[in-house]
Amino acid sequence: MNRRIETAEILAIGSELLTPFRVDTNSLFLTARLNELGVVVRRKAVVGDRRDDLAACVREALARVDLVITTGGLGPTDDDLTREVVADVLRRTLTVDETILAGIEARFARRGVPMPAINRRQACVPDGATVLPNSEGTAPGLLLEHEGRLIALLPGPPREMQPMFARAIAPLVEARSPGRRLQRRVVKVTGRSESQVEEIANPIYTSLNRDGVVVDTTILATPGQIEVHLESAGEDQQAIAAVLDEGVARLAAALSPAVFSTDGRTLEDVVGDTLRARGWRVAVAESCTGGLLGGRLTEVPGSSAYVLGGVIAYDNAVKIRDLDVPASTIDEHGAVSEPVAAAMAAGVRRRFGAEIGVAITGIAGPGGGTAAKPVGTVCIAVATPDTVTARTLLFPGDRDAIRRHSTSAALDMVRRALSV
Amino acid sequence: MNRRIETAEILAIGSELLTPFRVDTNSLFLTARLNELGVVVRRKAVVGDRRDDLAACVREALARVDLVITTGGLGPTDDDLTREVVADVLRRTLTVDETILAGIEARFARRGVPMPAINRRQACVPDGATVLPNSEGTAPGLLLEHEGRLIALLPGPPREMQPMFARAIAPLVEARSPGRRLQRRVVKVTGRSESQVEEIANPIYTSLNRDGVVVDTTILATPGQIEVHLESAGEDQQAIAAVLDEGVARLAAALSPAVFSTDGRTLEDVVGDTLRARGWRVAVAESCTGGLLGGRLTEVPGSSAYVLGGVIAYDNAVKIRDLDVPASTIDEHGAVSEPVAAAMAAGVRRRFGAEIGVAITGIAGPGGGTAAKPVGTVCIAVATPDTVTARTLLFPGDRDAIRRHSTSAALDMVRRALSV
Repeated sequence: MNRRIETAEILAIGSELLTPFRVDTNSLFLTARLNELGVVVRRKAVVGDRRDDLAACVREALARVDLVITTGGLGPTDDDLTREVVADVLRRTLTVDETILAGIEARFARRGVPMPAINRRQACVPDGATVLPNSEGTAPGLLLEHEGRLIALLPGPPREMQPMFARAIAPLVEARSPGRRLQRRVVKVTGRSESQVEEIANPIYTSLNRDGVVVDTTILATPGQIEVHLESAGEDQQAIAAVLDEGVARLAAALSPAVFSTDGRTLEDVVGDTLRARGWRVAVAESCTGGLLGGRLTEVPGSSAYVLGGVIAYDNAVKIRDLDVPASTIDEHGAVSEPVAAAMAAGVRRRFGAEIGVAITGIAGPGGGTAAKPVGTVCIAVATPDTVTARTLLFPGDRDAIRRHSTSAALDMVRRALSV
Repeated sequence: MNRRIETAEILAIGSELLTPFRVDTNSLFLTARLNELGVVVRRKAVVGDRRDDLAACVREALARVDLVITTGGLGPTDDDLTREVVADVLRRTLTVDETILAGIEARFARRGVPMPAINRRQACVPDGATVLPNSEGTAPGLLLEHEGRLIALLPGPPREMQPMFARAIAPLVEARSPGRRLQRRVVKVTGRSESQVEEIANPIYTSLNRDGVVVDTTILATPGQIEVHLESAGEDQQAIAAVLDEGVARLAAALSPAVFSTDGRTLEDVVGDTLRARGWRVAVAESCTGGLLGGRLTEVPGSSAYVLGGVIAYDNAVKIRDLDVPASTIDEHGAVSEPVAAAMAAGVRRRFGAEIGVAITGIAGPGGGTAAKPVGTVCIAVATPDTVTARTLLFPGDRDAIRRHSTSAALDMVRRALSV
């Protein structure tokens, strides 16, 4: 009987991943997929193109887990050692596979160039290995079994690695570990701090476990957004789904109206879907964010259905000339004030013939703060056919974080204005 | 005599780093700093909060390199095992250090709360360890020597870890490995593909080595930007500097005018500095980028000195009404065309009273492409007091990449217009 696959280790191979400029992201994809299949990732490592370092990593990993996945080092150059080193560690002979070789030659021929001699290396297969075809590149993957444990050698480029994992590795893991799966739900929140979310969510997620279902909770914070992840692995998928769905419902009720998504959609998606459903179009007026709010709204494909455009009013003269903000309002309250934000939102709404106008004016720093209006002070306003609402917020962090917070808060004000 | 420090391994500790949502970035900072000190990072690993996994990692690393750095796992909870496991591996006794304890208690007292009992753990010190004060948090770092090798236990939060490394670890490495340092130069290019840059740069960087100086080259591509990194480690800093500076000069000459920076500045910085030097102000007109160009220009603190603002003309009616694009030009050439881009640039320049206007109109996809104008087709124009220049470009990748490419190309056209 085959060994169950319950634990995995991921080895990212390549000296470029040991520089200060590159980070291994393949392991995030692999971890997500493996977790869904009920497999725990016990360790991730990054190792360079050195024969002895790589051999040590492979040997150690094979002694520890049921499945070792390597990414990278399958290219044609002298630096690409994965095949040779793994064959060596497992004491397998490497032989050129003529079918693979013909495939690589054909791939080059289709591009009208002869195959360089070095690419012959990519057709080398260790004894007893299963060849994993690569639909997107020249290097095939390899799968080997050693004393009941599996090692999969996958290519480094994500667009080659990901389909190969889905086609060859996922079904294998599924077959060897039937039943046990991980389910995950994500509750997305904006306009609350991490500690506020934690305080409200904690009594809920700590009381979810029942019917043998154990829920793991992670709270992830980025500027302007908090995500509560609930996940649980086990055999009884119905019981898990019931417990997680109850958790989502309770969190959504307790954190409402700050929850904007429980189905994976982004804040931009939710705002877009709501605008579209209502048949409303939006226009933006941005000062300190300089266009980033428009940039986020138009991240969504098809957003031209509901985004008309807007005015980047970085300079005060633009606020007056193109948004009809009275100069006296700026003089009296300052450019960063609720009356100015409100006038900007109303002005862009009227000028653009939009149903909803949204405006941001604030102090992103690092300069420009005062005692009364420190760096991070941002005024946001939303104008609809019925009302104009303005708020003043104080955001933490650096210039980037303050600008990101500002656009999230503005999107959320649009979402809330649309929900009434 | 103390052992030289030439090799290092970095261990990131914490189960949250083994989820699909978090990536260890501390190792990038540490790698950069260690490389500058002439130390090679041989391996990076991420391990969760499991006693045996962590012990194995520490044991393996200590057998391989001169310096092991761990980050994380120094908190007060049961999951924070780094201190205990390292003490165990090195067979040292852990004792509560009363001075550290008093410091932690004082830290809590300053915030007006009593120290929770669990924080006592953070005052535990293994026999013979050097305590590294933490100016930013409660957990001190620890430094131990074992059979001539060093292991440094640093906290996980970057704002605690980074100053501790700079104050305690960097000087130690410097003292133990005098002379050998790494120098790095970065040549930044836009408007060229990675293979074009490689083809031009390759004969240069492969011919740089002389006087015992060996240059390593890395080419990093992101949408809209290619970086050529030249680096060399050794004892003779003058010889290294001379070879690297020659490399930069030869690359800059060969890749000119596509090189926008050799001193670390971003494209936004360079455009801003050039506008400021010339006393010019810029206004933007954006269609498919929806505000992202304005967002990039205003990333730079103090950019209000030269950014007036602009118009997000996502809808064609906005192009006509707010940018004076003739409706007939749109009818005749289509909204994505050089005449429309030129009219947008000239229109925003005139309307905003700017010296330079820049406009983007394109098809970011995934929908909207045609045989004549496929997805990725983008027209960019720059208007100055003297001329209006428009170009059509075809960018690869998805919606995000096309929009990023578009803003880089627009910034570069502004840079080039300013350099004449």
